[in-house]
Amino acid sequence: MTREKKRIRQSLLIDYVKSKPFFTDEELAKLLNVSIQTIRLDRLELGIPELRERVKQLAEATQKKVKSISSSEVSGELLELELGKSGISLMNITEDMVFEKTKIAKGAYMFAQANSLALALIDAPMAVTGVANIKYKAPVRVGDKLIAKAELKHKRGNKFFVWVKIKNVTEEVFRAKFILVSLEDNGGSEV
Amino acid sequence: MTREKKRIRQSLLIDYVKSKPFFTDEELAKLLNVSIQTIRLDRLELGIPELRERVKQLAEATQKKVKSISSSEVSGELLELELGKSGISLMNITEDMVFEKTKIAKGAYMFAQANSLALALIDAPMAVTGVANIKYKAPVRVGDKLIAKAELKHKRGNKFFVWVKIKNVTEEVFRAKFILVSLEDNGGSEV
Repeated sequence: MTREKKRIRQSLLIDYVKSKPFFTDEELAKLLNVSIQTIRLDRLELGIPELRERVKQLAEATQKKVKSISSSEVSGELLELELGKSGISLMNITEDMVFEKTKIAKGAYMFAQANSLALALIDAPMAVTGVANIKYKAPVRVGDKLIAKAELKHKRGNKFFVWVKIKNVTEEVFRAKFILVSLEDNGGSEV
Repeated sequence: MTREKKRIRQSLLIDYVKSKPFFTDEELAKLLNVSIQTIRLDRLELGIPELRERVKQLAEATQKKVKSISSSEVSGELLELELGKSGISLMNITEDMVFEKTKIAKGAYMFAQANSLALALIDAPMAVTGVANIKYKAPVRVGDKLIAKAELKHKRGNKFFVWVKIKNVTEEVFRAKFILVSLEDNGGSEV
């Protein structure tokens, strides 16, 4: 019975790590209703690397897919990318990213994370931003880990409509709708 | 007659430099339909410093007015500020601000210029961004000098509606509408 339970739990753990690769051991423990120690042991047994290593592996594999901009120009770490479809990035908020007075992260950083992720998912040799509609929903502070998810909603001619949502753990802190424009590969023509 | 002409020209020059403090000698020469050399001599006679010095003087005097954020947090140089009303800033586009592939300035820089200028004109101890609607109208490249003008359109409770337009010389390259929210001075409460 216990062995059966363990088998089910480990199979669920494998699924979770695949679908939510940036969950911490603590979050995985909560999801599976076991102790953090159990998760660690399961990971060891199953050969699942720790969170930091998982993020690094994902980022390295994902970077190579970017076409429309240089992969180093994506703010934060690019964790997932399906060209022409969707992307996910992670950005850690550090001391230098917040306003001195409010200690709240400068809006330009979330903008850059969302905007560069939106551009990264465009399946064209080059692309630029045309329009952005943005909502800041909750303040972001030092130490926060922001997960941005971008999705291509539709495409008309050389215009790409991309929606991006940024979450701080489970709380949505930012959302943006972009219209991006792909360019011909001739060294930067007019938009 | 020539003396009269010179008197009128110099009086116009004084007005222009006051109303358009970031016009180059070349632009002033065109405006007054004289040679650049004439403008330089007029400036010398009238004790009007060169453009770079004028910008520096303006920026130093203006920075002291900022309340809602630290003046060093305004992107580019803050040239004019009327708290609760309007502001002007200048940003030079350098090599590190453009995308590698397109050589077009990253949208996040214009966003930061506009956003920080909009925040700077808020007459409150602290403010954050709530909403932004943005349009990129023309590509910006290395060497471009961007003049952003922000204007408080109206205010409702603790919400400030600020419009920002950025021009590259005479061409409008960017416009944004922000809704900013002023905060109580208690060290960063929820928005």
